[in-house]
Amino acid sequence: MSKNIQNALISVYDKSKLKSLLKSLSKHKIKFISSGGTYKKIISLGYKCTEVSRFTKSKEILDGRVKTLHPKIYAGILSRKNKKSHMDELKKNNFEKIEFVIVNFYPFEKTLKETNNHQKIIEKIDIGGPALVRAAAKNYQDVTVLTSTDQYNDLIEELNKNNGTTSLEFRMKMSLDAFTETGCYDSLISNYFNKKSKTFFPKKKLFYTNLIEKLRYGENPHQNGALYSFDKYCGINQLQGKKLSYNNYNDIFSAISISRSLPKNVGTTIVKHANPCGVSINKNKIKSFELALKSDPISAYGGIVSCNFRIDKKMAKELNKIFLEVVIGIGISKEALNEFKMKKNLRVIDSSKFKIENFENINSSNNNMLIQSSDFKNISRKDFKVVSKIKPSKKGFKNLIFAFNVCRFVKSNAIVIVKEDSTVGIGSGQPSRLDSCKIAIKKMQNFQKDLYKSEIIAASDAFFPFTDGPETLAQSGVTTIVQPFGSIRDKEIIKYANKVGMILVYSKTRHFKH
Amino acid sequence: MSKNIQNALISVYDKSKLKSLLKSLSKHKIKFISSGGTYKKIISLGYKCTEVSRFTKSKEILDGRVKTLHPKIYAGILSRKNKKSHMDELKKNNFEKIEFVIVNFYPFEKTLKETNNHQKIIEKIDIGGPALVRAAAKNYQDVTVLTSTDQYNDLIEELNKNNGTTSLEFRMKMSLDAFTETGCYDSLISNYFNKKSKTFFPKKKLFYTNLIEKLRYGENPHQNGALYSFDKYCGINQLQGKKLSYNNYNDIFSAISISRSLPKNVGTTIVKHANPCGVSINKNKIKSFELALKSDPISAYGGIVSCNFRIDKKMAKELNKIFLEVVIGIGISKEALNEFKMKKNLRVIDSSKFKIENFENINSSNNNMLIQSSDFKNISRKDFKVVSKIKPSKKGFKNLIFAFNVCRFVKSNAIVIVKEDSTVGIGSGQPSRLDSCKIAIKKMQNFQKDLYKSEIIAASDAFFPFTDGPETLAQSGVTTIVQPFGSIRDKEIIKYANKVGMILVYSKTRHFKH
Repeated sequence: MSKNIQNALISVYDKSKLKSLLKSLSKHKIKFISSGGTYKKIISLGYKCTEVSRFTKSKEILDGRVKTLHPKIYAGILSRKNKKSHMDELKKNNFEKIEFVIVNFYPFEKTLKETNNHQKIIEKIDIGGPALVRAAAKNYQDVTVLTSTDQYNDLIEELNKNNGTTSLEFRMKMSLDAFTETGCYDSLISNYFNKKSKTFFPKKKLFYTNLIEKLRYGENPHQNGALYSFDKYCGINQLQGKKLSYNNYNDIFSAISISRSLPKNVGTTIVKHANPCGVSINKNKIKSFELALKSDPISAYGGIVSCNFRIDKKMAKELNKIFLEVVIGIGISKEALNEFKMKKNLRVIDSSKFKIENFENINSSNNNMLIQSSDFKNISRKDFKVVSKIKPSKKGFKNLIFAFNVCRFVKSNAIVIVKEDSTVGIGSGQPSRLDSCKIAIKKMQNFQKDLYKSEIIAASDAFFPFTDGPETLAQSGVTTIVQPFGSIRDKEIIKYANKVGMILVYSKTRHFKH
Repeated sequence: MSKNIQNALISVYDKSKLKSLLKSLSKHKIKFISSGGTYKKIISLGYKCTEVSRFTKSKEILDGRVKTLHPKIYAGILSRKNKKSHMDELKKNNFEKIEFVIVNFYPFEKTLKETNNHQKIIEKIDIGGPALVRAAAKNYQDVTVLTSTDQYNDLIEELNKNNGTTSLEFRMKMSLDAFTETGCYDSLISNYFNKKSKTFFPKKKLFYTNLIEKLRYGENPHQNGALYSFDKYCGINQLQGKKLSYNNYNDIFSAISISRSLPKNVGTTIVKHANPCGVSINKNKIKSFELALKSDPISAYGGIVSCNFRIDKKMAKELNKIFLEVVIGIGISKEALNEFKMKKNLRVIDSSKFKIENFENINSSNNNMLIQSSDFKNISRKDFKVVSKIKPSKKGFKNLIFAFNVCRFVKSNAIVIVKEDSTVGIGSGQPSRLDSCKIAIKKMQNFQKDLYKSEIIAASDAFFPFTDGPETLAQSGVTTIVQPFGSIRDKEIIKYANKVGMILVYSKTRHFKH
């Protein structure tokens, strides 16, 4: 680029930081073309500016709907400097080259927050802006396109470094951002329309996510990994400790999901390898941790503890007694944080701002993607039906709901054994349901020494295909089974339960999780 | 809409089906405006057509870069019929309303296939087309926008039904498709630029996937589910049987991934709940199935069998002997298919066209997404290091590579025990590595009666944190352990291996899979 006078077409919704940008552009003898609110702002900041209608010599029509959609503007943007024919045509038509296009759109997310009125939403869709941006981005060899105020400082630096021009590399980077911006903008519109027309699974599903953090690596060191969010913030506030890894995040999401499904302000969840290994909702918070830990103290080693409450000093002292990778609270008191400082590697997370929402769940494999609505459900009394002769007590029902709820979060086939309001055995990830039963029973037998005459509840994420599972559970002291129905042997299992005096409760929903 | 003469602006890359569309439009007295190749095509089909430059009274400039970017076109598209001021302005400027915008773009995927030349790729980016489409889509209350030849028949029907006009509902649906189309188009450009600049994790990650099939439900009946693909085809060709479910697909993807990691044309994999429960690479195909089945015949019940070869009649007969949900082959012979017909519910899949590619892996939770490069790796001799005094034989090395390879596909913590070229015990999905060892050993003891003096290999997906795992394995007859290194107790484990005369081999890579 030469040091001739250059033109910048400016049309920005976000007028912040405009002052410093204009100052820099002006210093480098770059002239401004603008209209509407941006024009007024430029004038008010004391700079000269040519109005678009004066530049194109076309009057604004249709309430400003067709301002910049004019050959003079597009010839200015799309013409190639190194093509003599292009430059000749510009001259012949008395057109001018436009070297900078600085545009940002009225954010569509903001529109959606402001109104439900479809007509108003449509009215806010920007047509001129994206067209300008895409044209400039295409011709990045000649044109610098800016689509965000975040880029202003880079441009100012670039202009200073290059005597009022920009490098090809810089322009290419801005071009990439520009196409991403227009793509994201239309993906929001597309998703809005889909939502409005209640199309859950459209023919083409478009989405974009925001980079939250590049991670050291993925699930394993030879894989690259990053955390993205549909939001701008992932809701995980790390207060101390080593950098969170891919696997930490995976475990944390699992742990918080379980925590939030428990009664409010009560409950401790311990997670290892994305599976819970101990959950308890005892109202005594220290005790809830102790009981969760007792469920499988060996697996809890190096695990993740998520408290469904604010962690205070006393709790922190307790947590510090064992080796943990991550501790999560809904708030961490100052004194607790002081305690945690003794273990400087321990990652401490405040999850107060973490939102559990009914998002779609995406499971990708190779170039395929299974998409489903999440298994987002508040489980309550009405989701169950007692089918055995003996009925559970009120307390028993509360406990079996707890058991079944935890079971939803365990990888299939899942069996969760519970005593009162704490897990005492979790069997996960087995191809055979009977094996999951055996694993859960083994845990219970290993770590619980005081089960004599207790009510013991076992929850299964799907139906038992045979009576062998219920039999094995009953023989190990289980007094209540809660499970979905649907097996051709359902009747046999009911019969067996009645024979041995077990309580059998059906859940109306199945909860496979793979 | 009235039955006045209407205008259709037509600019299509894909000129197929144009004939029947023009016939219908013409029947309803709709006039054509076009340019370039589309103009020529319309004329050649015997219809009248106004060239864009004649319509706008502006000469084409810059090699046609700025044809439709003209106020007359955009006023025609963006003006509102029910706004008197708009209609007055059109009249005053001698502009005409444009009621139909029929545009499709040169497919960007096609461009990328045709050339690697960046300049040529950029040249192909359509600026005018998306601008027209977006303007028409915004003003769908007045304008019908078509972006795909797939929509032509619907439009023809709609015009016939509504006496040459379209319903608001139809126009809104077309508008949704239009914004999806422009969003997808720019997502391809954005991804192309990212790839070119080697940006694996951009600030905003934009993607779209194609709906392959809506499923009856998701992982569970109360969840909605669908299969999408980055491709237009998912590579699963179902030849018979019940409709594939969400969980079937999940299992199938897992099964094929394992199959394809095995030596070509050899090997049978049995999957249940997305975990392998038996894998064998015996060259005798029937035997490979028998050995895979023997690994865990109980879990294999209702499982998924994936053969890494073409299934013939003999194999089909063998497979028909047990209850399976899905059978997968790389091709299925006609005779085999005939055999399968006896089990009409059995889902039979030809996976010949399934492509294993190095795609990113997406793991979503709530509104967050962990994205990583896939654990896509061909494992070979050079990925291992022998650290024990006793070294594996050549055959032993082949077998331990097989064991470690299968281990990569088992949910963590994973232990895979192998005899020769078949699994004999798989322990999966446990928070404790020792428990996974015990599960694998238990399977081996249950189902293998002839292990006396055999070479038995155990693979672990990550390092052993303590010596208890290796000890338990050795005591159960395991003669070789293959594992990643990295524990502070690595030396103790080497010492133990040498003490008991075990072979210990380190893998250079870890393979967690959650």
